[in-house]
Amino acid sequence: MAQTRVLPAAENAHQYPLLIKQLLLSGPRYSPDQEIVYANRSKYTYTDLVERIHRLANALTDAGVKPGDTVAVMDWDTPRYLECFFAIPMIGAVLHTVNVRLAPEQIVYTMNHAEDDVVLVHDDFLPILEGVRDEIKTVKTYIQLSDEKTAKDTKLETAGEYEALLAGAAAEFDFPDFDENSIATTFYTTGTTGNPKGVFFSHRQLVLHTLTMTGSLSAYDELPLLRSSSVYMPVTPMFHVHAWGVPYAATMMGIKQVYPGRYEPELLVDLIKEHKVTFSHCVPTIMQMMMGTESIKTADLSNWQVLIGGSALTKGLCDAGAKLGIRMYTAYGMSETCPLLSASHLKPEDLELPLEQQTAKRIKTGIAVPMVELEIVDTSGNPVAHDGEAKGEVVARAPWLTQSYFKEPAKGEELWEGGWLHTGDVASMEPNNTLTIKDRIKDVIKTGGEWLSSLDLENLISQHPAVAGAAVVGIPDEKWGERPYALVTLKPGEQANLEDIQSHLQHYVDSGEINKWAIPSQIDFVDDIPKTSVGKINKKLIRDQMQ
Amino acid sequence: MAQTRVLPAAENAHQYPLLIKQLLLSGPRYSPDQEIVYANRSKYTYTDLVERIHRLANALTDAGVKPGDTVAVMDWDTPRYLECFFAIPMIGAVLHTVNVRLAPEQIVYTMNHAEDDVVLVHDDFLPILEGVRDEIKTVKTYIQLSDEKTAKDTKLETAGEYEALLAGAAAEFDFPDFDENSIATTFYTTGTTGNPKGVFFSHRQLVLHTLTMTGSLSAYDELPLLRSSSVYMPVTPMFHVHAWGVPYAATMMGIKQVYPGRYEPELLVDLIKEHKVTFSHCVPTIMQMMMGTESIKTADLSNWQVLIGGSALTKGLCDAGAKLGIRMYTAYGMSETCPLLSASHLKPEDLELPLEQQTAKRIKTGIAVPMVELEIVDTSGNPVAHDGEAKGEVVARAPWLTQSYFKEPAKGEELWEGGWLHTGDVASMEPNNTLTIKDRIKDVIKTGGEWLSSLDLENLISQHPAVAGAAVVGIPDEKWGERPYALVTLKPGEQANLEDIQSHLQHYVDSGEINKWAIPSQIDFVDDIPKTSVGKINKKLIRDQMQ
Repeated sequence: MAQTRVLPAAENAHQYPLLIKQLLLSGPRYSPDQEIVYANRSKYTYTDLVERIHRLANALTDAGVKPGDTVAVMDWDTPRYLECFFAIPMIGAVLHTVNVRLAPEQIVYTMNHAEDDVVLVHDDFLPILEGVRDEIKTVKTYIQLSDEKTAKDTKLETAGEYEALLAGAAAEFDFPDFDENSIATTFYTTGTTGNPKGVFFSHRQLVLHTLTMTGSLSAYDELPLLRSSSVYMPVTPMFHVHAWGVPYAATMMGIKQVYPGRYEPELLVDLIKEHKVTFSHCVPTIMQMMMGTESIKTADLSNWQVLIGGSALTKGLCDAGAKLGIRMYTAYGMSETCPLLSASHLKPEDLELPLEQQTAKRIKTGIAVPMVELEIVDTSGNPVAHDGEAKGEVVARAPWLTQSYFKEPAKGEELWEGGWLHTGDVASMEPNNTLTIKDRIKDVIKTGGEWLSSLDLENLISQHPAVAGAAVVGIPDEKWGERPYALVTLKPGEQANLEDIQSHLQHYVDSGEINKWAIPSQIDFVDDIPKTSVGKINKKLIRDQMQ
Repeated sequence: MAQTRVLPAAENAHQYPLLIKQLLLSGPRYSPDQEIVYANRSKYTYTDLVERIHRLANALTDAGVKPGDTVAVMDWDTPRYLECFFAIPMIGAVLHTVNVRLAPEQIVYTMNHAEDDVVLVHDDFLPILEGVRDEIKTVKTYIQLSDEKTAKDTKLETAGEYEALLAGAAAEFDFPDFDENSIATTFYTTGTTGNPKGVFFSHRQLVLHTLTMTGSLSAYDELPLLRSSSVYMPVTPMFHVHAWGVPYAATMMGIKQVYPGRYEPELLVDLIKEHKVTFSHCVPTIMQMMMGTESIKTADLSNWQVLIGGSALTKGLCDAGAKLGIRMYTAYGMSETCPLLSASHLKPEDLELPLEQQTAKRIKTGIAVPMVELEIVDTSGNPVAHDGEAKGEVVARAPWLTQSYFKEPAKGEELWEGGWLHTGDVASMEPNNTLTIKDRIKDVIKTGGEWLSSLDLENLISQHPAVAGAAVVGIPDEKWGERPYALVTLKPGEQANLEDIQSHLQHYVDSGEINKWAIPSQIDFVDDIPKTSVGKINKKLIRDQMQ
């Protein structure tokens, strides 16, 4: 390591560790009277938010929570959750945001694995916990979260109801300083195989993610999502990567925030209309549901901008949004990356085009945000060309990436092979640094020394007039390494055979779009393509059946 | 300290130290073809900037610079200086930005004190160094900076001329990772007494200052100074607190930058016109000079926004700017604070007023930016009321404040008394968190248990029709602690005596604006008020003469 002139500890005594409590300084200072809204139930000001965070810290301490403990939350998207985002890490405890969509046995696995000490649980989720009560090993106390005046009866032993505890707690808490590398939050990824894996983020990481996000989503006229006049409503759950970290950024800026509770499409659209929401983040499925509501037909959405993530923003969805005036942007990241890595970035001249003509830019994975190093690499870890064609796995370095998986260091070492975080995504990079995700690396077909995107090939096959759907996986091949194998469903009444599909694909070979070894020599025509529980093609199952 | 769950080193191995090289990632990535302009001399792109920084790193290494060395720069505000902002810290060396306005014996003091190894010096400053050549103790090599093709002859032993060295150096440098607490920059404050004191900033501090500045000056519609469509030109020197750190933020964002070289008022105005500059920072004196030019009369300055710092933005200057369409904001900070602490912050409804009616808001010291804790305290360190009346010394905590004075730890301890950085400024704080600086603490008059602003009293005395100017200091008093003493100059042909001034001030006592002990019992009428070399009232001399 370079022999720089490093500040000795004594000369660096006032360094001021990066702590989440600092993210709470400026919002209430700029906008003490700005509102934080809970759906059509209640609202309060930033001044109230600060007092409630102090009261919550006292209530948790009264309930026995100490620094280093883990406090789990099972709630819908509410201002209560926002209070937990701050109060729990600020007292030095770890916030476990429980994925309430997991199966009960997986929820109990994550709670035991994270060693939760206290659980804050919404009435709606009481039955889940009551059902697995005897399997929960480390929890000492429950706190009930109720939207009604009276909390539901429960078999769990609770310290009381949230609002009652806050009302009974002291209004001031002296939040301590501590090491900025203290774990602030943890949550679990949902792998397709094996148990959920726990990622974790430190105070330092969350502060740096917030500062960079604020700059990235504010400074660029091409991406003007988070400005002091914005009105923010999350539409990805707070349990999942802290709602992409946006509540921290919004609070730091002191902007109006609207929390919708449960994701009921009509309610979401009504809240956007009522509160003139300008910025949300969303996955394609929920966006599709919102676009199918009656409410949306009478909404003026020309001031609503949406970051789309989770899975690819398709041309169809982006176009449909454009017709309603909605400006969508692609954001890229994952649980392990806190999550922000990149976002689509339109040039001023792009923004002058009619909205419908901007889609091609908006659906690209975009350009890495400040402080992030992104590269695409081959299987040996060497960078591949940034020519918009060559494909490589996306790897990243940034100051806010999970350092490992909780209590699974071996999996963490795999994640960080070669000192870069491996995303498992395959992408190309244009000369102008724009990334486009092509596939998951486990689904990409390594054939003839090149990487063939299974998604690209599925799209090409689907363009045959007789084809309804296609699924492509790689199967081992002695000569080529792997060869593509396709399952195809046909439209009702249509006919096609192997040769028809092959000669259809030959056109793309002739035009140089794909190589000749991309043409499958084996295709099975089936009635249904196997899907996972969330509706994605189950490629693992298809591969397994071919072995 | 709270027993939080701290990440052990092994589980925190990929933390990614905060280094200045990361600030260079996103600008060239977003805007490879964006321009960086050197006055009316030359321009190049961000892609060129990156290559030139790499070449400079090689040229410095070839000249013997190692990590831990100190490299001094004596230049006007040029893209060369911007290259040094990056290349020198990025190789692990310390950048010493020499204050070229100091007297030669003070310059040589700072160079010896900082232990400069290499000095990059512009032709214009060669005579200074040649004159003190034998007193310079640690410098091994000089590099010449020339705006002309041929470098000036010099008696100094140089490694060559900057452009020639860059042309001869390799185009790629592998910048190392190292401890984020490594010192990146140092420079010297100009105290009124004693030798200049060296402040220093680490890579971590500069990265955090940059990230927060980008958010602060971008996210707020009330302060929309740094956006991707901005055009930036510094008008405070790069040797002084890194031109307030803005070049780092502008580069991170990839926005157009214009470097003016020397501050010639006509040239500055012409550059603003030619390049449609939207954002500058400036001290009142230079702004006054620019407003006195012929050029400005034909300029459209309605898109030019200016942060004013260094000394107070007066109502007169702000009003005069408003007449020209210039939107000025007050920024507050000092050498020791990197410098950003607060900025004036107008509410949306304020911005809807005619520009002339916004002055009262724009001249306030403003609200602290994110991540900064600001407090006003009495002499015991206890906070005083935030009522817009009570006065206290401004103290600060933030992640980017100098940790001490270089090789003067005792003075550093004084700066950080009680764990807060003491600014030496006295201010009041309104209930809405708006700060207004009232005085320097050494000039404030502690009388009758209260703090009386010498500036306020000077302003009140100056409102007597016969008075041309006034200087007020505190002199020791057994009963009151201190009592105000005033020097007054009269307008030509006017007459006034002690009683006249006292009865004039009595009106302000009657209206409750000041207390009765604010009325000086002693006033001397003089022809001239003693001034310092930079034109400020020399209060130290006045106090000394009274003892």
